[in-house]
Amino acid sequence: MDYYSSQISKLIQELSSLPGIGAKSAQRLAFHILNMPVEQVEELSSAIVDARKNVRYCKECFTLTDDELCPICKDAGRNHKTIMVVEDTRDLAAYEKTGKYDGVYHVLHGAISPMLGIGPADIKLKELMQRLQKDVDEVIIATNSSLEGETTAMYISKLIKPTGIKVTRIASGVPVGGDLEYIDEVTLLRALEGRTEI
Amino acid sequence: MDYYSSQISKLIQELSSLPGIGAKSAQRLAFHILNMPVEQVEELSSAIVDARKNVRYCKECFTLTDDELCPICKDAGRNHKTIMVVEDTRDLAAYEKTGKYDGVYHVLHGAISPMLGIGPADIKLKELMQRLQKDVDEVIIATNSSLEGETTAMYISKLIKPTGIKVTRIASGVPVGGDLEYIDEVTLLRALEGRTEI
Repeated sequence: MDYYSSQISKLIQELSSLPGIGAKSAQRLAFHILNMPVEQVEELSSAIVDARKNVRYCKECFTLTDDELCPICKDAGRNHKTIMVVEDTRDLAAYEKTGKYDGVYHVLHGAISPMLGIGPADIKLKELMQRLQKDVDEVIIATNSSLEGETTAMYISKLIKPTGIKVTRIASGVPVGGDLEYIDEVTLLRALEGRTEI
Repeated sequence: MDYYSSQISKLIQELSSLPGIGAKSAQRLAFHILNMPVEQVEELSSAIVDARKNVRYCKECFTLTDDELCPICKDAGRNHKTIMVVEDTRDLAAYEKTGKYDGVYHVLHGAISPMLGIGPADIKLKELMQRLQKDVDEVIIATNSSLEGETTAMYISKLIKPTGIKVTRIASGVPVGGDLEYIDEVTLLRALEGRTEI
């Protein structure tokens, strides 16, 4: 990129190191930034550094946050006796977008994967068990429906069962609006097994 | 986005204001940044601010650069008597990538567009005419082959003709690897008009 001056090249290079941003997009983004008002560029830049520097785990649910407790754990209006276990903060966000879940969460930061050498001690599982010593009614396991997610769900359920706390798993099945023709067989069998009376 | 803490929300919001980055990508980028080493994040952030603060026009060719002269205008090894006129810095980069053009450039920063109210005075045309007072052999007009690009090419060519300097226009035609079946009629006619003996 000798045809760009050094700072422009540097910017394009930094941007293209981000996930999902190829050479062309990085170039387009760089020129957009070069045309933005300086104050706006400074705001973008400090948002990046501030968020990174202040990010930490919520001491209760381990989601990424910038305070001791995340907004959800702080909220007295939520049902703190129901804990939904998710693999990461984005999964939490996905359920929050539904606007219908009023319990709290527990973020594992991963899933058990013997293939990748990730064991139960590598995710926030001990921390989940500690939380269960408080008054908890139900643990909803909402790990992904991948091999790793299912393994993790089974493992957690076996761990919690002896405590007498209710453990549930979110349903697997055909997505709403999904066309049966294009759905894989495993999902179709899951949907059949999980059928309910109407 | 109440489920994210304020600084994480702010970061996602800033990222999603960039072109081509939707809500989902902004979220993915934000979490990537939150997991990057602090030094790397600081480097990204300062690349953004530094490039924006130091960006200016090359005083010769008006490309975006961070120095008085851009790397191309500085290069004594290039042919300074051939000037390729392009609409913006990215078009210059596109030709530089071919690695076969050894002349210099002139960046107009736009094209004449009566529809958008952009006239000859709104682009770097006066500056091009000033450059032609030096020793120039040929001006190659490489504006886009859109209506605005063509209008601009015609206008410039009429302006330069009286000076006696050779003015050329890059060829329009079927792109290499293009399937005739899918090419629009205007391009097909252009390709026919521009046919050469083989």
